[in-house]
Amino acid sequence: MKKFNWKVTKISKDTRARLGIITTPHGKVETPAFIFCGTKGALKSCSTGEAKNNNTQIILSNTYHLMLQPGSDIISKHGGIHNFMNWQGPILTDSGGFQIFSLGHGSVADEIKRKNSNRKKSLLNISEEGALFKSFIDGRNHLLTPEKSIAIQRDIGADLILVFDECTPFHVDKSYTDQSMRRSHNWSTRSMNSFQKRNKYLPMKGSSGIQKLYGIIQGGIYKDLRDESIEFNINSKFFFGLAIGGSLGSTKEEMHEIVDYTASRLGNMHPIHLLGIGDPEDIWKLVKSGVDTFDCVSPTRLARHGSALVKGKKGKINIKNNKFSENLSPIDKNCHCSTCKNYSLAYLHHLLKAEELIVLNYITTHNIYFMNSLMKYIRESIKEDKMLEAEKNWYSD
Amino acid sequence: MKKFNWKVTKISKDTRARLGIITTPHGKVETPAFIFCGTKGALKSCSTGEAKNNNTQIILSNTYHLMLQPGSDIISKHGGIHNFMNWQGPILTDSGGFQIFSLGHGSVADEIKRKNSNRKKSLLNISEEGALFKSFIDGRNHLLTPEKSIAIQRDIGADLILVFDECTPFHVDKSYTDQSMRRSHNWSTRSMNSFQKRNKYLPMKGSSGIQKLYGIIQGGIYKDLRDESIEFNINSKFFFGLAIGGSLGSTKEEMHEIVDYTASRLGNMHPIHLLGIGDPEDIWKLVKSGVDTFDCVSPTRLARHGSALVKGKKGKINIKNNKFSENLSPIDKNCHCSTCKNYSLAYLHHLLKAEELIVLNYITTHNIYFMNSLMKYIRESIKEDKMLEAEKNWYSD
Repeated sequence: MKKFNWKVTKISKDTRARLGIITTPHGKVETPAFIFCGTKGALKSCSTGEAKNNNTQIILSNTYHLMLQPGSDIISKHGGIHNFMNWQGPILTDSGGFQIFSLGHGSVADEIKRKNSNRKKSLLNISEEGALFKSFIDGRNHLLTPEKSIAIQRDIGADLILVFDECTPFHVDKSYTDQSMRRSHNWSTRSMNSFQKRNKYLPMKGSSGIQKLYGIIQGGIYKDLRDESIEFNINSKFFFGLAIGGSLGSTKEEMHEIVDYTASRLGNMHPIHLLGIGDPEDIWKLVKSGVDTFDCVSPTRLARHGSALVKGKKGKINIKNNKFSENLSPIDKNCHCSTCKNYSLAYLHHLLKAEELIVLNYITTHNIYFMNSLMKYIRESIKEDKMLEAEKNWYSD
Repeated sequence: MKKFNWKVTKISKDTRARLGIITTPHGKVETPAFIFCGTKGALKSCSTGEAKNNNTQIILSNTYHLMLQPGSDIISKHGGIHNFMNWQGPILTDSGGFQIFSLGHGSVADEIKRKNSNRKKSLLNISEEGALFKSFIDGRNHLLTPEKSIAIQRDIGADLILVFDECTPFHVDKSYTDQSMRRSHNWSTRSMNSFQKRNKYLPMKGSSGIQKLYGIIQGGIYKDLRDESIEFNINSKFFFGLAIGGSLGSTKEEMHEIVDYTASRLGNMHPIHLLGIGDPEDIWKLVKSGVDTFDCVSPTRLARHGSALVKGKKGKINIKNNKFSENLSPIDKNCHCSTCKNYSLAYLHHLLKAEELIVLNYITTHNIYFMNSLMKYIRESIKEDKMLEAEKNWYSD
């Protein structure tokens, strides 16, 4: 059976940016890398085959969604999520905490991106035991505990799994953040115990295989709390990887600062994942802080709204715009994705107007290829110690 | 430049079923063949690349839809519809008549399938000049004439194009059908004149290339009118192919009878296309009458509603049904499509429940592969003079 490994192959001269390789039983991930969201066991409007053909290295799926529908037992019966969704590359699952709390407080994206939301709250109660929430599917109550999250993630069978945590909202005070961090650390210890117990057994028939656990750094925007959480996570000597979680502040600057601070103290012993952040602008910034992997729904979500990612300062174009109705060029003449090789903006615009669903697939494919090309360009620039030059070049279009 | 050709390579011993090859500048079509509907210049929920990988030979697109959105000029600027939609295989366009009249009277499918519809009528007036209709997009009035239909189809640039005709509804009497047929014959003559005039010129830069015209047999359910229309079409000595159009009666039996009667009198000189019909049951029946090509929206439409085509008497299964929620088998264990090779019914069921759009692509791909496999199976059975045995075998599952 193949082993897990994390290796830093180069550290940038000017910044903390680094090249690395995460090895899993389902293949290697060259970092810095983007992790695409297959929330419910499928990428939005893109097949796993197309994702692979467009250079995707790793996919994330969400325990919270999968436990409610179809249920982890069904996935386990398929021999795990790799077979279930037909993606034989590396997969990461989050612990469910992120969704419970962000949906509970508003929405995932709203929460970590500092927006208040009027969405119906689904989080019913947080106790030392776990989190009680209402299913978004049938309204039934579920209690998710560290033990249950790990058991479910074992059944789902991703390569990389996360400890159960509370994702603190940005509007709480330091005292709540402190208290929440301590509870998350307790949950983390219980996650480790649960993980270790089950790991003693051979993988269940047709399920999970071997897995590695990520810890999550808590502490919100408070550097002393971040320090404490880093100490807790490093001292546990248990984690394969470390994720930066919790509230990242109320502005982009605050987010960059707290991630930079946190990453700067995590060293090179673990791959560092930043949960739920991944706009190109953030990636350019935070790779230099030492973040190795990013996940975000934006590339596939933007596509669903007719927006294609492009280089330069504008960052994206909305193909629904009438100005593209007679444009015979592809989204980007220099892009080698299957969409840019085969379709004009005028055609994509026509399909959006005609409400032909396949156009969402075409734009999504471009956006996935685009993000993977961005990460490759960043990796090459780190390799050649030309990251600052490369970033300037990226925005010069 | 490659030429057009129609060649019958074998005629069945027991029936009028035959094997043939339609040659076009964009490749050959082995008949009997199914023509998939790319109504608005795209197959529903399936890329042209996937359609090709799943053995699709030829695609149909609709002049009525394309003239309104995006307009034939845009398609012409792309060098024709093959480039526009990135399908380099053979393409057929209908003349617009079919849609104008069936949408005018109700809906296309409702009309030829004998259902009354409450859909808003869009046909405003039929005169000797042409048909005045209201655009379904912006409500503006358009007059479509034979000359205009041919000019638009020239711009669109499909390999095979159709004369402009009135598609008579099933509820009209013989007198109206007779009158309508005579008008359609006049329109047919004008279509031929228009086609010939334009064909004298070299293909416009970046457009159309060479094309061939299909005549349409009118006459509704009246055999003497069908005879008259057949005589008109054959005597014109102008058409590459012949389509069976107009009303096909108010029951399936009536439809089978009138198509059988009409096809029996068309000989082997032209490929025979049956407009808008293509359920497996109809195909088995009408290939034996000598029909060479069929088109129908049902394979892609069924997929959009969660139904996958299967062999045997039931013909299809609805994957939304809860009984598939734990079924680890593919749609069909013996199917070699990319969906059946990679995904379980439980997974497809989950995606339908989770409203993941990509599932429509997976089911559509299966249905396209299924129809192409059916046609190949029929062709092989004709080759071996075992069609009746093959049909029995098909329904024995």
